[in-house]
Amino acid sequence: MTTEPTRPPMTRFDFDLYSDTKTRPSPGMLRAVLEAEVGDEQHGEDPTVDRLTARVAAMLGKEAAVFVPSGTMANEISMLVQCRPGDEILAHRDSHLLNFEAGGAAALAGAMVRPLDGPRGMFDADTVRAALRRVARVLPHSRVVVFEQTTNLGGGAVWPMDQMTEIATLARDAGLAVHIDGARLMNACVASGVGPAVYGALADTVYMDFTKGLGAPFGAVLAGDRDTINAAWRWKQRLGGSMRQAGLMAAACLYALDHNIDRLAIDHANAQTLASGLAALPGVAVRTPETNMVFADLTDSGMTAVEFDRALWSVGARVSIQGPTTIRAVTHLDIDRSGIDLVVEAAGRILAGRGPRA
Amino acid sequence: MTTEPTRPPMTRFDFDLYSDTKTRPSPGMLRAVLEAEVGDEQHGEDPTVDRLTARVAAMLGKEAAVFVPSGTMANEISMLVQCRPGDEILAHRDSHLLNFEAGGAAALAGAMVRPLDGPRGMFDADTVRAALRRVARVLPHSRVVVFEQTTNLGGGAVWPMDQMTEIATLARDAGLAVHIDGARLMNACVASGVGPAVYGALADTVYMDFTKGLGAPFGAVLAGDRDTINAAWRWKQRLGGSMRQAGLMAAACLYALDHNIDRLAIDHANAQTLASGLAALPGVAVRTPETNMVFADLTDSGMTAVEFDRALWSVGARVSIQGPTTIRAVTHLDIDRSGIDLVVEAAGRILAGRGPRA
Amino acid sequence: MTTEPTRPPMTRFDFDLYSDTKTRPSPGMLRAVLEAEVGDEQHGEDPTVDRLTARVAAMLGKEAAVFVPSGTMANEISMLVQCRPGDEILAHRDSHLLNFEAGGAAALAGAMVRPLDGPRGMFDADTVRAALRRVARVLPHSRVVVFEQTTNLGGGAVWPMDQMTEIATLARDAGLAVHIDGARLMNACVASGVGPAVYGALADTVYMDFTKGLGAPFGAVLAGDRDTINAAWRWKQRLGGSMRQAGLMAAACLYALDHNIDRLAIDHANAQTLASGLAALPGVAVRTPETNMVFADLTDSGMTAVEFDRALWSVGARVSIQGPTTIRAVTHLDIDRSGIDLVVEAAGRILAGRGPRA
Amino acid sequence: MTTEPTRPPMTRFDFDLYSDTKTRPSPGMLRAVLEAEVGDEQHGEDPTVDRLTARVAAMLGKEAAVFVPSGTMANEISMLVQCRPGDEILAHRDSHLLNFEAGGAAALAGAMVRPLDGPRGMFDADTVRAALRRVARVLPHSRVVVFEQTTNLGGGAVWPMDQMTEIATLARDAGLAVHIDGARLMNACVASGVGPAVYGALADTVYMDFTKGLGAPFGAVLAGDRDTINAAWRWKQRLGGSMRQAGLMAAACLYALDHNIDRLAIDHANAQTLASGLAALPGVAVRTPETNMVFADLTDSGMTAVEFDRALWSVGARVSIQGPTTIRAVTHLDIDRSGIDLVVEAAGRILAGRGPRA
Repeated sequence: MTTEPTRPPMTRFDFDLYSDTKTRPSPGMLRAVLEAEVGDEQHGEDPTVDRLTARVAAMLGKEAAVFVPSGTMANEISMLVQCRPGDEILAHRDSHLLNFEAGGAAALAGAMVRPLDGPRGMFDADTVRAALRRVARVLPHSRVVVFEQTTNLGGGAVWPMDQMTEIATLARDAGLAVHIDGARLMNACVASGVGPAVYGALADTVYMDFTKGLGAPFGAVLAGDRDTINAAWRWKQRLGGSMRQAGLMAAACLYALDHNIDRLAIDHANAQTLASGLAALPGVAVRTPETNMVFADLTDSGMTAVEFDRALWSVGARVSIQGPTTIRAVTHLDIDRSGIDLVVEAAGRILAGRGPRA
Repeated sequence: MTTEPTRPPMTRFDFDLYSDTKTRPSPGMLRAVLEAEVGDEQHGEDPTVDRLTARVAAMLGKEAAVFVPSGTMANEISMLVQCRPGDEILAHRDSHLLNFEAGGAAALAGAMVRPLDGPRGMFDADTVRAALRRVARVLPHSRVVVFEQTTNLGGGAVWPMDQMTEIATLARDAGLAVHIDGARLMNACVASGVGPAVYGALADTVYMDFTKGLGAPFGAVLAGDRDTINAAWRWKQRLGGSMRQAGLMAAACLYALDHNIDRLAIDHANAQTLASGLAALPGVAVRTPETNMVFADLTDSGMTAVEFDRALWSVGARVSIQGPTTIRAVTHLDIDRSGIDLVVEAAGRILAGRGPRA
Repeated sequence: MTTEPTRPPMTRFDFDLYSDTKTRPSPGMLRAVLEAEVGDEQHGEDPTVDRLTARVAAMLGKEAAVFVPSGTMANEISMLVQCRPGDEILAHRDSHLLNFEAGGAAALAGAMVRPLDGPRGMFDADTVRAALRRVARVLPHSRVVVFEQTTNLGGGAVWPMDQMTEIATLARDAGLAVHIDGARLMNACVASGVGPAVYGALADTVYMDFTKGLGAPFGAVLAGDRDTINAAWRWKQRLGGSMRQAGLMAAACLYALDHNIDRLAIDHANAQTLASGLAALPGVAVRTPETNMVFADLTDSGMTAVEFDRALWSVGARVSIQGPTTIRAVTHLDIDRSGIDLVVEAAGRILAGRGPRA
Repeated sequence: MTTEPTRPPMTRFDFDLYSDTKTRPSPGMLRAVLEAEVGDEQHGEDPTVDRLTARVAAMLGKEAAVFVPSGTMANEISMLVQCRPGDEILAHRDSHLLNFEAGGAAALAGAMVRPLDGPRGMFDADTVRAALRRVARVLPHSRVVVFEQTTNLGGGAVWPMDQMTEIATLARDAGLAVHIDGARLMNACVASGVGPAVYGALADTVYMDFTKGLGAPFGAVLAGDRDTINAAWRWKQRLGGSMRQAGLMAAACLYALDHNIDRLAIDHANAQTLASGLAALPGVAVRTPETNMVFADLTDSGMTAVEFDRALWSVGARVSIQGPTTIRAVTHLDIDRSGIDLVVEAAGRILAGRGPRA
């Protein structure tokens, strides 16, 4: 158990492939922020927030929606609304909810999380079926199934509709709710051609994050039926997620909906280019990307992930460390094709002359 | 137990005395937002957030600070860090923590709240002493004392330093922590001439809100020693309060620190003017304001608080309803002296010819 | 805040007026224990427990009941079943739930407790009405009203039926549940002549304790409708209150129902005798007992409560300390009339020659 | 997700192999109950409870111990004392804590449970090492490792000392606490020849259950250092586990310590006999028992587990259902060698003439 690694000496990288959370607001987006009409959000008086939530609810085919500061809060609120203490959540072993929310599912909702296995961050219906608890006093109560669309640690994979549908049907038949962690839902939509309302129809609650590929600085929107969102509001208030003139930030999200969805296809193409470029290098094994994430295994290159990342710093690039010899590179709107080419070229130089480790 | 009252047909009032949370960002503040240098806040990479937290920590005389979406989250995180489940918080019966955080102290921190009595939202040392539990297995464990500075339901009263000091000393001697809910801390500083670090020295945790009199759209900063703020960060993550390019919002807060502190004196003067104007009307009893809040009792005017408020709508003004015949009017930077005069004049017209209710 | 006082050098007092929890099982009761038919309680296989729960459910006019190790667990389970985190419980300021369950209402159920005032541990309907929260996102959600029948810190007072009925009606009209903490419910029944089912009809959940005046060594039974008790079972399991051959203890409770209810009238008469005896002593002010508790104020006697209690030890008696000069003496089946006389006589000797403190 | 299976028409089986929790107190044990000296346990005034806790603390090599109603409460209290909300518990995927405590670890302690894999209910040090979280704000905080000794769903396996020692050392080096769920600790001691204090030395908290092979009707004792047990007491009070004249039940536990430890070897021998007998039947695959549990797979016998169990009822025997074709039979002091022979003979008759299912 080690502590967090040393931070880089700089916080601004020209080619920041660490995550698509690193995007900075564009001039057009900032103009939208500047021109936003605002009000007291927690009293329902911010017209820009109202426009955003109404629009996202419609996109996702839901009655209502609520604006929250982060995807983590959207996930936690969904669990708080769906579960009572002692209930059990079924989520992938590598899911964000289970791994990167500091134990919030248990700490806040008092819920157990049952980790499900499956390739690329996805599980199948049989796995869910086997994980359902029978109803008995001594057992946790199976309560909600969580899809993460796309899967983050699963490499940006897109859950196939038929797999999701089978699981969602099974879940409902068994009395469970369904939640979609849509941190990168629009990447899935663009990659699969499936509309967000089609995914939304599978779920009781679904949220869309604006700080990943959509390139906004802040916020997520959680959608569901009216009663659910009313209950979500109460938890938002309790968690401290209710805001004042939040229309400033909602304006950036609305701008993102207008300008930054279709262009995700560019990020996906850039991920393909990056993957091909890295795969051509000696000792690098690359998983074929489905959306905007490239996972590469450097085991046979003779370099560790940390060494590779640090070497990239010198050209103003970085990636994230996923394991001793595994890196993740995420494409986004602040990195265009020429940036990708530059990183591939740099990676080539860095790895040149390195052989397999003794 | 009634439901929430009907919302007004509009959300934009020219003279919105409902609360100082209703302020909209000024052009200068928006310019600061536009020019902010930003980064990924939850990775410690947003330089504007860093500047804000360092500055507030210094103002409050604390080692460290963390930026959070709301004062409610600041309060809840402080309770989560200070308390273990079953501990007891000592707070005024009318405090925000006890009344307006949807039960978060119990729901999140698992803590009991022991309501203390005292005039104008303040309690004295004897009241605290009598409320301390002895240490026994069956009893809740007295753990933290909360000051709300200024008191909201107490009418914007400013806790006197000697009273706070006596209580803080008592609390520490008894092994309790001290938290200051600084939703309107700078109003207290301006009114009392006591510096924020002097108040800060009394407390283990203290936060400053930027969305009240300081006029920023978003955010609060919670300060304490380094270990406490590290623990606070973990809870911020868990609650979903960690953000991305939050420097946009932090820039507005920095602007507020530069431009909107000293001018709180104007709000206080306006509150005096408003109080005098209302007190001169028939059937209106007004509590002398200490800062920017005016509480008026309309019992003898023959009007209910709701009737009075609705009548004000016609001139583009509103107040908040505190009881059947009690209203609260809060002055802030979007209402200047002429606005106050206009409201007083309108109130005079509204109340003219009304007599005591049968 | 002081630590727990030094324990007495002995644990067996001939005249233990500290509490009616101090009773020891009688030979007849032990014979019942010995002859009990038992089984695995948590699998529903203990016939003696089944007989006990069926009998108590019938007595209280409820569909179902569950056996739990203590009255505290009965209270906590009721709150866990009735409340969701952030809900608010209305209970008397001096109630057991609020004061002597180590903060469990908040720690386990995540519920706020709103303390209500009123003489002798009871509140009236107007107090409840004023304490109900309107429904709003920022407010805790008023959820359940708790009666403690009889009131412990209130001096063993018996809630009048009409007062309870008015409050219960009000609570239901407002959508709240009603719980009766029946630690000493049978004392109330014997004193008032009101049957347990009449009290039970007012409540959603009600429990009866067997370790107080009923003289059993262990256990309480919580009753309600079938769904509520099913939910209670789940919490009992979770809290670790499910047992194995618990019929041994249930047999003692059944014995108590057969033999120890009517005789509570003797304890009440003994409390009257004790109260009269103490009241006749110089400097002792006594509250007239309604059931089996005598509260006496020694302020004018020149002795502290601790001094008085310690002096009693020498004759094998003790009382409990309720304040610097306040003691509580509880009568029960291990103290007969002659024991009462002996204690009064001893108290007379102890206080003789003492004057008011300087 | 099915509901609980229909209960058997009777609750008393002559040969109840369902679990060792089914034992009924022997005449000698009941005599001990009858003769127990008792007092008010939650005030520390029950001498028999004091004798029991002192004795168990000494046996386990710990400073202090506390008597609780069940092993579940012992586990939950340990987690409540060791963890803060958001912490993570490392436990075997098949452990009691994770599966049979109705989600209490999350519902009460707010802790995540990370399931570890490994054969027969045990995991190795590498598995623990890989499961430790690095310290980062977004991650749950690895806090405690739980051993279940013996393993229940693992078939009554005994953790080898060297494996436990390696893991305990690793845990402590990483700052984690160690807890032993000793539901059947004495079975492990008898089978391995390792003394309870040797196991106890590995752990911060360890409990011993009296309602399994030790044959008492009620109770478990949780041991640790003095501060830990003081904190445990507070949680025991909060959960409603504090009792009154609990010495009655503690006397049965003391009797079990005197009379029922060494004889566990008989249960283990009977389990061997039962396993051999069943293994000789057609289509039955049996796992070799290490202690008092026999798991048998009936897949090739043509019978389901439910059919097999119901057929046994006719001779007054039953087993527990672990899966569609898997049964568990547990030996204990209410079943002697002749009972085992009778069950084997009956099983032979039941399975005779059955072939593999189509």
